[in-house]
Amino acid sequence: MKKAYIISIGNELLIGDTVNTNAAWIGSYLTDQGFNVEQVFVIPDSYDLITRRITEALSEADLTVVTGGLGPTHDDITKKAVADIFEVSMQENEEVLLHIRQIFKRRGFRFSPTNAEQALVPENCEVLFNKKGTAPGMWFVKNNRYLVLLPGVPHEMKHLMEKRVLPKIHETFPGREVWATQYFRTAGVPESTLSDQIGELGDYLNNGVGVAYLPGASGVTIRISASGSKTSEAEEKLVQLRNLLYEKAANVIFGEGRELRLSQVVGEMLAERSLTIAAAESCTGGLLSDAITDIPGSSEYMLGGVVAYANSAKMNYLGVAEADIDRYGAVSRKVSLQMAAGVAAKFNADIGVSTTGIAGPGGGTVEKPVGTVWMGFKVGDDHFALKAVLGNDRLINKERTVMIVLETIRRHLIGLEHYPYNLKLHRA
Amino acid sequence: MKKAYIISIGNELLIGDTVNTNAAWIGSYLTDQGFNVEQVFVIPDSYDLITRRITEALSEADLTVVTGGLGPTHDDITKKAVADIFEVSMQENEEVLLHIRQIFKRRGFRFSPTNAEQALVPENCEVLFNKKGTAPGMWFVKNNRYLVLLPGVPHEMKHLMEKRVLPKIHETFPGREVWATQYFRTAGVPESTLSDQIGELGDYLNNGVGVAYLPGASGVTIRISASGSKTSEAEEKLVQLRNLLYEKAANVIFGEGRELRLSQVVGEMLAERSLTIAAAESCTGGLLSDAITDIPGSSEYMLGGVVAYANSAKMNYLGVAEADIDRYGAVSRKVSLQMAAGVAAKFNADIGVSTTGIAGPGGGTVEKPVGTVWMGFKVGDDHFALKAVLGNDRLINKERTVMIVLETIRRHLIGLEHYPYNLKLHRA
Repeated sequence: MKKAYIISIGNELLIGDTVNTNAAWIGSYLTDQGFNVEQVFVIPDSYDLITRRITEALSEADLTVVTGGLGPTHDDITKKAVADIFEVSMQENEEVLLHIRQIFKRRGFRFSPTNAEQALVPENCEVLFNKKGTAPGMWFVKNNRYLVLLPGVPHEMKHLMEKRVLPKIHETFPGREVWATQYFRTAGVPESTLSDQIGELGDYLNNGVGVAYLPGASGVTIRISASGSKTSEAEEKLVQLRNLLYEKAANVIFGEGRELRLSQVVGEMLAERSLTIAAAESCTGGLLSDAITDIPGSSEYMLGGVVAYANSAKMNYLGVAEADIDRYGAVSRKVSLQMAAGVAAKFNADIGVSTTGIAGPGGGTVEKPVGTVWMGFKVGDDHFALKAVLGNDRLINKERTVMIVLETIRRHLIGLEHYPYNLKLHRA
Repeated sequence: MKKAYIISIGNELLIGDTVNTNAAWIGSYLTDQGFNVEQVFVIPDSYDLITRRITEALSEADLTVVTGGLGPTHDDITKKAVADIFEVSMQENEEVLLHIRQIFKRRGFRFSPTNAEQALVPENCEVLFNKKGTAPGMWFVKNNRYLVLLPGVPHEMKHLMEKRVLPKIHETFPGREVWATQYFRTAGVPESTLSDQIGELGDYLNNGVGVAYLPGASGVTIRISASGSKTSEAEEKLVQLRNLLYEKAANVIFGEGRELRLSQVVGEMLAERSLTIAAAESCTGGLLSDAITDIPGSSEYMLGGVVAYANSAKMNYLGVAEADIDRYGAVSRKVSLQMAAGVAAKFNADIGVSTTGIAGPGGGTVEKPVGTVWMGFKVGDDHFALKAVLGNDRLINKERTVMIVLETIRRHLIGLEHYPYNLKLHRA
């Protein structure tokens, strides 16, 4: 397995003003490309340390990716250090210079000689042209060791990794074992249940596959990966693994992709079925509507909602009966059912959902501890409620409640009979 | 200045499953304690690499903080490597063993011999007792170089740094220059304006002070820091610096503390003045209500809101005139004013606020490009609107709109006449 190092340059990383998300992204990317990412170094804009770490990396790692230290204010140090390591001088790259001039013209900024220095690169490098910014990436080789310099701005770095570095990697390391990876999102299932249900997928395919569970407040993400001597082989193995995964857990996977949101999947289902939705929120305080409207185009199915924080709002806006609030309390099956039906009727929506609970940290009682949440659903003729008892953290309780509501809608729409976290269905 | 290294152990950091937030936190903490955090290393659970990096650190840095690699499944490697570096053997720590047994008893888990191994520590270490978990921290010294081992679980690591490591640092490095730091939150002022307005605070106090601007989607955070030979001296200097800062920028600082939220400050102002609020949201889709209700106790002043995504909801729920929507469009001064007045009236709230805009990425026109937002305010007899033209990113547009609305309320309540980003006031 080829060995990779990552070197992140920047004082802001060392004093903790910035968290090193670049290194995590590159680590994940290079792992998928079949590299063993063995070490990450964070160093300041210091000629000596840059020289020391890059020299060490060039004698130990097959591929070293360096980010940061290429901005117009401090690019001299990194580029100078690297030119000195390779014992070469700097030269101007005409394409880059033209590109920088164009950017300045477009933005209406005056172009100064300092700006031209960004077009200076060590003469032994291959320029990785940067469409997204002024600092170019650079690719170096010496004694079969490869070095990449990239700007530290995350979207420029990612652009260069995907568009310029990847083809170079394919060309340079043709025989390597590559990995294909896929992420699946689940909601409403604890990590332990999920791993019990899925079991050891790797057994079926012997070596070279992996399954990992990444928990988060909005659900557990499953990562599967498979290796092969070339991408097509790894991808083929991954398809088999994916099929096994679906055999065992299709009912709880709501979609594919690490960043996929449940509100997007539910939104697409609503759009496909030409259904509209409205939300009556008490304990989630707007977060449910917010999650739904985070999705571009959500105005097609999201009619709106009511944040009914005060009891008077529950009565006046949603038609909740005062007698039921008095008798059962605002956090109750009855009230959640009436809120859901009320908001569906008021907005003339196909689906009405509601949340009412004790988000915390205060307000709990022995009977209804902090974290008690009732969620109401009116979907056509179906009218039901679910009750969950969550934890003590207000923000996590809001987030989990939104996840349960959205996942319940999803499962209901595809006709599943089991509800998130095996919550019991209370019919109206 | 004393030199510090940070070593983070963990495969999950290298393959990018986890972002290294621990290193950022420790970097910030040690910087405040007067250390020059010169390098961060991330390495896997490998005996060789742990040995190599710790040996190097012990010969170069005054203080090295190592996190991770102490869990029950892999603690052997790190502790064994460190014992071998110091050429000592392992011994059982009775206090730690008792503590682990108690934790297992309380949680009702069976105690196995493997668990007892967590109480084994290199015999030359001073144990840093860990109330929050089973893995103890460890403090070592050799030739005036200090080494700390801490568990990688963030809240355990922070607990040990604050309660056990800090006193050791005070005792071990008494003469060092320490820093006192304070964070101030601002909203509605661009970073460049802020730094022009504040200028060079350092000039007043000569050396040993710093001002930094940390921008984010919900406003710019100002960090000031001052150094001294002891904490009291640094804190005294910081008070002077703080006074200078307030002389120059009191009007835009909404509060102190790195994590302080604008919705908390506005919430406290509303509670103090016994004012209630209600929100009518179109383009923010619930995020404004969500931000307000994120604050514990917000039910005291937050009556609720309407997410009026559909035009019909704006008319039916908020009394917006259909003729005005037809004539001016839903994203207009008129509609934002009517939404604010409507929601205040419906909820019988002292303050009504509204948002209507084109969050993007689609839906823009030449006249009203993506990012155009109108915000309406009804505060007692005052009735006005602000218009902002933001960017193309839907989620950032939602977040910035919420910031502008909350900051406008804050400035209005304290009688300031200038609005966020110098937006023009449009009276009803």
